[in-house]
Amino acid sequence: MSFNTFGHVFRVTTWGESHGPALGATVDGCPPGIALDAGTIQPWLDRRRPGQNRYTTQRREPDAVEILSGVYEGRTTGTPIQLMIRNTDQRSKDYGDIADSFRPGHADLTYFQKYGLRDPRGGGRSSARETAARVAAGGVARAVLADLVPALQVTGYMVQMGPHRIDRSRFDGAEIARNPFWCPDQVAADAWAEELDAMRKAGNSVGAVIEVVAQGVPAGLGAPVYAKLDAELAGAMMSINAVKGVEIGAGFEAAALTGEQNADEISMGTDGPVYGSNHAGGVLGGISTGQDLVLRLAVKPTSSILTPRASITRAGAPVDLITKGRHDPCVGIRAVPVAEAMMVCVLLDHLLLHRAQCGAGLLGQIGGTG
Amino acid sequence: MSFNTFGHVFRVTTWGESHGPALGATVDGCPPGIALDAGTIQPWLDRRRPGQNRYTTQRREPDAVEILSGVYEGRTTGTPIQLMIRNTDQRSKDYGDIADSFRPGHADLTYFQKYGLRDPRGGGRSSARETAARVAAGGVARAVLADLVPALQVTGYMVQMGPHRIDRSRFDGAEIARNPFWCPDQVAADAWAEELDAMRKAGNSVGAVIEVVAQGVPAGLGAPVYAKLDAELAGAMMSINAVKGVEIGAGFEAAALTGEQNADEISMGTDGPVYGSNHAGGVLGGISTGQDLVLRLAVKPTSSILTPRASITRAGAPVDLITKGRHDPCVGIRAVPVAEAMMVCVLLDHLLLHRAQCGAGLLGQIGGTG
Amino acid sequence: MSFNTFGHVFRVTTWGESHGPALGATVDGCPPGIALDAGTIQPWLDRRRPGQNRYTTQRREPDAVEILSGVYEGRTTGTPIQLMIRNTDQRSKDYGDIADSFRPGHADLTYFQKYGLRDPRGGGRSSARETAARVAAGGVARAVLADLVPALQVTGYMVQMGPHRIDRSRFDGAEIARNPFWCPDQVAADAWAEELDAMRKAGNSVGAVIEVVAQGVPAGLGAPVYAKLDAELAGAMMSINAVKGVEIGAGFEAAALTGEQNADEISMGTDGPVYGSNHAGGVLGGISTGQDLVLRLAVKPTSSILTPRASITRAGAPVDLITKGRHDPCVGIRAVPVAEAMMVCVLLDHLLLHRAQCGAGLLGQIGGTG
Amino acid sequence: MSFNTFGHVFRVTTWGESHGPALGATVDGCPPGIALDAGTIQPWLDRRRPGQNRYTTQRREPDAVEILSGVYEGRTTGTPIQLMIRNTDQRSKDYGDIADSFRPGHADLTYFQKYGLRDPRGGGRSSARETAARVAAGGVARAVLADLVPALQVTGYMVQMGPHRIDRSRFDGAEIARNPFWCPDQVAADAWAEELDAMRKAGNSVGAVIEVVAQGVPAGLGAPVYAKLDAELAGAMMSINAVKGVEIGAGFEAAALTGEQNADEISMGTDGPVYGSNHAGGVLGGISTGQDLVLRLAVKPTSSILTPRASITRAGAPVDLITKGRHDPCVGIRAVPVAEAMMVCVLLDHLLLHRAQCGAGLLGQIGGTG
Repeated sequence: MSFNTFGHVFRVTTWGESHGPALGATVDGCPPGIALDAGTIQPWLDRRRPGQNRYTTQRREPDAVEILSGVYEGRTTGTPIQLMIRNTDQRSKDYGDIADSFRPGHADLTYFQKYGLRDPRGGGRSSARETAARVAAGGVARAVLADLVPALQVTGYMVQMGPHRIDRSRFDGAEIARNPFWCPDQVAADAWAEELDAMRKAGNSVGAVIEVVAQGVPAGLGAPVYAKLDAELAGAMMSINAVKGVEIGAGFEAAALTGEQNADEISMGTDGPVYGSNHAGGVLGGISTGQDLVLRLAVKPTSSILTPRASITRAGAPVDLITKGRHDPCVGIRAVPVAEAMMVCVLLDHLLLHRAQCGAGLLGQIGGTG
Repeated sequence: MSFNTFGHVFRVTTWGESHGPALGATVDGCPPGIALDAGTIQPWLDRRRPGQNRYTTQRREPDAVEILSGVYEGRTTGTPIQLMIRNTDQRSKDYGDIADSFRPGHADLTYFQKYGLRDPRGGGRSSARETAARVAAGGVARAVLADLVPALQVTGYMVQMGPHRIDRSRFDGAEIARNPFWCPDQVAADAWAEELDAMRKAGNSVGAVIEVVAQGVPAGLGAPVYAKLDAELAGAMMSINAVKGVEIGAGFEAAALTGEQNADEISMGTDGPVYGSNHAGGVLGGISTGQDLVLRLAVKPTSSILTPRASITRAGAPVDLITKGRHDPCVGIRAVPVAEAMMVCVLLDHLLLHRAQCGAGLLGQIGGTG
Repeated sequence: MSFNTFGHVFRVTTWGESHGPALGATVDGCPPGIALDAGTIQPWLDRRRPGQNRYTTQRREPDAVEILSGVYEGRTTGTPIQLMIRNTDQRSKDYGDIADSFRPGHADLTYFQKYGLRDPRGGGRSSARETAARVAAGGVARAVLADLVPALQVTGYMVQMGPHRIDRSRFDGAEIARNPFWCPDQVAADAWAEELDAMRKAGNSVGAVIEVVAQGVPAGLGAPVYAKLDAELAGAMMSINAVKGVEIGAGFEAAALTGEQNADEISMGTDGPVYGSNHAGGVLGGISTGQDLVLRLAVKPTSSILTPRASITRAGAPVDLITKGRHDPCVGIRAVPVAEAMMVCVLLDHLLLHRAQCGAGLLGQIGGTG
Repeated sequence: MSFNTFGHVFRVTTWGESHGPALGATVDGCPPGIALDAGTIQPWLDRRRPGQNRYTTQRREPDAVEILSGVYEGRTTGTPIQLMIRNTDQRSKDYGDIADSFRPGHADLTYFQKYGLRDPRGGGRSSARETAARVAAGGVARAVLADLVPALQVTGYMVQMGPHRIDRSRFDGAEIARNPFWCPDQVAADAWAEELDAMRKAGNSVGAVIEVVAQGVPAGLGAPVYAKLDAELAGAMMSINAVKGVEIGAGFEAAALTGEQNADEISMGTDGPVYGSNHAGGVLGGISTGQDLVLRLAVKPTSSILTPRASITRAGAPVDLITKGRHDPCVGIRAVPVAEAMMVCVLLDHLLLHRAQCGAGLLGQIGGTG
C-alpha cells in the first residue's frame, strides 16, 4: 500500500474529495473477460449510500457510478477501469465556519500541519466519502471473484454498538439485511435503535465493532512474511476512516487463552483437512486455512458532534467547536459495506498473487503425493 | 509490503529459515553517512535472543550479526546493507518426527498446501526465528533515527500475560528492563513469574498483550489514505508471528465511547498544539499528531505445547502430536523487541516518505502564515 | 513501473481508451502547495494535440483537461490529482471494419491473444491517444519542477525523419517551435515537409529520431542500481507507443569509441566540477552529473497505412488490410511532447526520491569536508 | 524497479560491493518445487567469471555461489533464496591511490556528490562486479523457466566490437561458445582478437554492441502500458554497467523505414499466427508476439585505461589519472552473460505476472471462439 493505492496485482487507486466535482477509483490489473457494467457495481454503492434512514448522514446523493474505461461490450478488457462518482450535493456552506479552525478528532489539523494547506470542504480527502470509491472497487472485485471462486462469500455485520454487544446465541444471518444496523441479532437491533435515537437527538455519537466473515476462501492465499493475508487485511481495515483496532479469529481474547485451549485440532474430512475450532480465524502463518476468515474492527464514535469541544484556530487562538452539518451518529453503520469491500479486494489480490507464484490451486494435497 | 519486503523508501527484505545456514535482512534505501557497525545493532539482537532465562526457548546461539555490505569505514554508504546472522544451534533431530505431520496452530499445513513442500526443520521460514532479522534491521533504523530525530524513543512492554493485566497505577518505566517480561509493573511481574513457571512445567503456554509507545514522533508522518501511518503499523505488527490483533490509542475500547468522551481537545502550547487526551493514540486521519504513538498487539499462546493435540499426517491419517523441542511458554516476551523493531522501521520509512513529498519538517505552522 | 502506473513517489496512473467517454491520469504523491489549474496544464496538451497541421491525424478535439481532485483554491493539496480529458470526436465507424482482423504492426493481435478480447475502436488502450494523459501528468510535473528547480528545462526535438538527419551545424533552438516538426534545423524542416507531403499522399509513413535534452538537472539524481536515472528514463521512453530504441549520451556510437575518446575529462569550475565533453549524456553510474541530460529515441513509422498488407482475421482467414481513418504520416512528431512529459515526470520523481534518502541537495561537496 | 530491487513477482534484490566480504542476490517470489542447488547456478557464473582469458580482467576468484535459504532438499520452497558469492581476491591496494580523486567515466564523482561518501575500493557498489549477483539470480530464473517453458532459450552474443561489426551472412550460432567474444562470426572473432590485443597493450579499451535473442517466448507476455515487455527490458538492460543504448527489433533503423517496409505481415500457420518478418523484434503494443524477441545493447568502452585523463581531487585540485589495476579492455564481453541474465529474469517475471492477471496460457485463440 502506497499513498492512495493498494494491492499488488489487483491495484486500486482512489482519488477525490468530499466536495470536489467527483471522486472515484482507478482499478488496474483486473482480469479480462469479466462481465461488468455500472449495474453490477451500483447495488454495493447503494448499500453504503447515506441518507437511507435516520441513522446515517442526511447528505442525499445518488452515488451513481460511471465506468469511464476498461470495459468493452460489457466485459472487462484487462486495462484500467476508471470508476467515477459525481458529487452532487456539496453544500460547502455547511463547513465554511471551520475552514480556519481544526475539529477535534478529525484530520483537519494533521493535514494542515503535513501539507501546509487543506481542502476544508467536508473534510476534503479525509472525509468518509472517500470510502464510496472503495466500495465501487469492491464491486469490481466481487464480479471477478464470482467468476473465479463462485463459492466465496463475504459478509459484514455489527456485533457491538457503543458498549452493547449482540447475543451470539441469537445470531441470525437473515436478520442482517432487515435492520439499518447490519445487526444479526434482532433484539439487539431494537435496543440499538433506541440508543441511537437518543444519541442523535443529543448530538452525540457512538462507536461500534464490526465483524467481517469470508466463507469459501480457498486454502493457500497469503504471501508470507510481510504480505501475510492477515497482515494485509489488518492494514486494509485500519486504513478505513475511524477504525482504531483490528483482530483476526480469537484476536485480543487469544492473549488470555492457553496453548491447549487455543489449538485448533485437525482431522481429515472428505474434501481435505477439517479443523475442530477456529481460534486462528482462518489464517495460519499468514496463509488461509480454508476455514472461515473471521475479522473484527473497532470503529470510534463519529467526531462530528454538537457538543462544543475546545480547539484552536489556524492563528493559534482557542475556539469552541460544534460540528454542524450532516453527520452520522454511528459511522460504524456505513463502515460495514466498506470493510466488506476492502476484504474482497484483498482476497482477490491474493488469489491473483497466489496463481502468479504457485499457479492455480493448491500445490500440496493431503493424502496425495505432494 | 510485498512477499518478504516491507517499506517504501527504507525497504527491508528478510530471508532465511530457522535451521538453514543463516538468515538475515537486506536493508535498502538507508540514508548515507550514518555511523553503523555490528556493535550498533548487536545490543538490540541481544535483547531478543532466546535462552537468556527460563521463560524463553533454550535454543542457545549468539545471534551475532555480520554486516556484509553497505557500510564503509563505519558509515552507511546509501547502498544495500546486508545483515547476516548465522544459525549455529540447529538441532534438526528435534523436529524430525514432525516432518510428515502438521502441528496444530502452526503454519505447517498451510505452507504445505500452498507450496507443495515445506522446510520442516524448526518451522522453516515460518519460525519466530525470522524475527531476528527484523530486529537487526530495526537496529539500523534506530541508528538513522538517532541521527535524524534524536528525541524519538520507542519502548515496548507487556501489559497482559494470559488473563492477567498490569495495574496501570503501578506503571514504572524503569521496571521494564528489570524483569524477564518487559513488565512495567513489578507486582504483576512477580505474579507472572509464578504463572509462567506453572505453565512451563505443565508444558502449556499463554498469550500476551504488548504495548509499544513512540515518544517524540514528529507530527505530519503518514501517507493517506492507504499508507496511513496507523494502517502501515497495523500491517507491520500483524505480520509478526502469533499476533492476532492490533489496536491504536483507545483501540477496541473506542467502540464503547461516545463522541464526546472520545474527542481529544486541542489547545495551544508554547511549541505548538497540545492535546488534552490521547484516545487517538497519536494518529488522526492516518497522520501523526506529535502526541505519543500508542499501539497494542495481542499475541496468541505458543502453539508448541506438550499436551497431545489431534492432527493429521501428510497421508491424511490421524495422529496425536506433542511438540517436543525447545520452545517458549510465552512467545509474547520475545515479541516485545520485535514489535519495537517494526515500529522504528515504519517510522523511519514514513519520515523519509514525508520528506520526499513535503520536504523536511512541517509545511503548516499554527499561528504562522501556512 | 507496474501495469498502468509509473513512478516511485510522484506516481502517475493513466487510464482510458481512444474511443471511450474519457481518458486521464491519476497523479499521486505530488508535493502540496504548488500553483496549479487547468490553464497550467493545457498549453502542454495543446502542443501534442492532433489536427493542428496537415502532418498529424485529422482527428479534431480540444483535448481540454479537467482537474477533478487534488487542487484547492489553485494549489495542490498533496492528495491525488485526477486529470480527465473527454473524448469528443470518436468516429467509431472508422474502425468498424477491423474489429475482427488484426492490423500488422499494431497491438491488435497481441491484445487479443493476451486478454481474449480487445476494444477495437481506435486501438482502444493501445492507441497513441493514451499519451495525452502522459502529457497532462507532465504538465503537473513541470509545475512542481518550476517551483523546486526553476533552472531546469526540458526540450525535445526531432533530429531525424525517415533517413534524413539534421545538420547539427545548423542547430537553432529558436527554430524548434517554428515548424511543425519540432526541428531545430530550418533547412531540414523544409526538406522534411516535402518528404512528408509525399508520404501522406502515398498513404505511407516514416519513422523518426527524437532527442530530448534536460538542462539544469541537479547532480545526484538516480537510485542505483535498478532505479538508475538512465535505466528509468529508458523504460519510460520505451513505454511510449512506437518507440523501438533509446540511447543516452553517445549511445550506440559509444560502442565504436575507445576509452580514451569516450572519457569525459573533469576540471574544477567556479560552481563545482566541469566536464570537458558529454559522451556520458549527463549520467554516470546511474546518477546525474549535472551536465545536460541527453537522450534519443527511435520511433518507428506509423503502422496505419493505405497500402494493403497481409494479415488474418480472428477466424484465422487471410485478409488484406488497409487502415483507413485519420492517421499520422509520422507519429514521431507528436511523440516529441510525450517524450518531454515522460522525462519531466521521471526527473521529478527522482528529485523526490533523492530528498527522501539523502535530504535536499548534494551531500558531497568538492573542495568541502564531505 | 526500485533502488536495488527489480521485478514485480519474481523480485531480485542485489547487494554488495566489489571489495567487501561478499555480494549476492535475494530472490523473492520464486515458484516453489523447482529443482535447484548451487550446481544449477554455478555454470552461468562461470561464463561471466573474469580471468578466463587475456581479454578480461585478471582478477581471479572462483565466484562460487552459496545458497543460504529458500531451498530444501534440492527444491525451491517459495521463500526467499539468498545467493551469496564471497569476494576472495580483494586487492584493495590497487585502488588506494584513487580514494581521493574521481576517475573520468566512472561513478566515483556522482556517488560522492549524491551520498557524501563512497566506498572507493574497486568502485564499491558501482563496480561491474555487482553483475555477478544478477547472473546468479538469472540462474534461478533459468531453472524456473526450464520447468515452466522448456522450449524457451535465451542467447546473447556480440555483434560489434569497437567499429567492427559481424557479417550476418557468416552467422553461426555454434561459433558463439568457441571464442572469447561470444562472437557468432568466426572471421570477425579473429579480427577482434587482434584488435583487442592491440588495445590491451596500449592500455586502451573499446565498446561493443551485444544482441540478445529469446526464442520460444510465449505470446501474451507484457503488462501495458508502463510495464510493457520492451519497456521493462529496456530498463533492465540500461541498468547494466556501461550500457548506453538499447533497441528492440529494427531499433534505430526503424526510424529510416517507411510504414510499408516496417509492417510485419501476418499469416495463419499450423500452430497460430506466423509473421513474414520481425521488424517488431517480437513485441507489439508491449506484448510478446511469440516471434523471437530480439534486443541489442550498446556498451561503452571501459573507462579504466592507462592513458592519463584529466580529473580533480576531492579537494577540487586538478589531477591526471591513470587507472591501474585489473581491468577489461572490452567490458562488453562480460556483459553478454549479464544481459542474458537480465532477460531471463524479466521474462520469468512477466510470465508470472501474466498468469496472475490472465491465468496460464493465452485467452484469445485465433480461429477459436475467443
